[in-house]
Amino acid sequence: MERIPILKLGDILLVTIQVELHDELAMTLQEDLTQKLARTQAKGVLIDVSGLEILDSFIGRALAQIAGIARVMDATTVLVGMRPAVAITLIELGMTLSGIRTALNVERGMKLLAEATGEPGVPPSPP
Amino acid sequence: MERIPILKLGDILLVTIQVELHDELAMTLQEDLTQKLARTQAKGVLIDVSGLEILDSFIGRALAQIAGIARVMDATTVLVGMRPAVAITLIELGMTLSGIRTALNVERGMKLLAEATGEPGVPPSPP
Repeated sequence: MERIPILKLGDILLVTIQVELHDELAMTLQEDLTQKLARTQAKGVLIDVSGLEILDSFIGRALAQIAGIARVMDATTVLVGMRPAVAITLIELGMTLSGIRTALNVERGMKLLAEATGEPGVPPSPP
Repeated sequence: MERIPILKLGDILLVTIQVELHDELAMTLQEDLTQKLARTQAKGVLIDVSGLEILDSFIGRALAQIAGIARVMDATTVLVGMRPAVAITLIELGMTLSGIRTALNVERGMKLLAEATGEPGVPPSPP
């Protein structure tokens, strides 16, 4: 069965979405993430959508739902890696993704989560 | 065009492979990774294959090639997240993935890379 992998990085769960999130896959992801949040007691969820060329209202809703679930399980969700064209389309469609924090890339997302949860994130790379 | 995202985490590039690596996609990944290695001067590459149910000889060769390219660009590659069934099949097929280091999951892979490159990895999560 098709599944989206959830990677544990310290106190953070990283989900990289590369394929179109259809109905069943979104449900599986929600279930997997809930179980992993319970098992790992992670404090943050990073959802990377840099692999997506299209982010439609269905995916937007699915992501908002995932963020909602994470919130009640005491974890903060940050959406990262949105392509410029995707961001433009989202706003044109009237979707503001309210309730989901966003960051430009995974590193900034980790920093944001570290600030939000008070945990140390990935050390910055040397300049 | 279909692309596999490459995420930068500190000094490490993380590649999560979730879709069957066909010819063109493997080539694109090699090019993208080479450019990103040059641009970010990353010291390690983590390839997560936990999303793959099948790892055939083509993907095996593509991964070995990527590890080879990374090596000449002064980066260490670690393959992580291989499913038990995939590991069994690989060995049955006579593929030993020689030349590629492996680790059970992303966290252990990061630790291995940190040891190999002498850089601090992701801080361990509290017990």
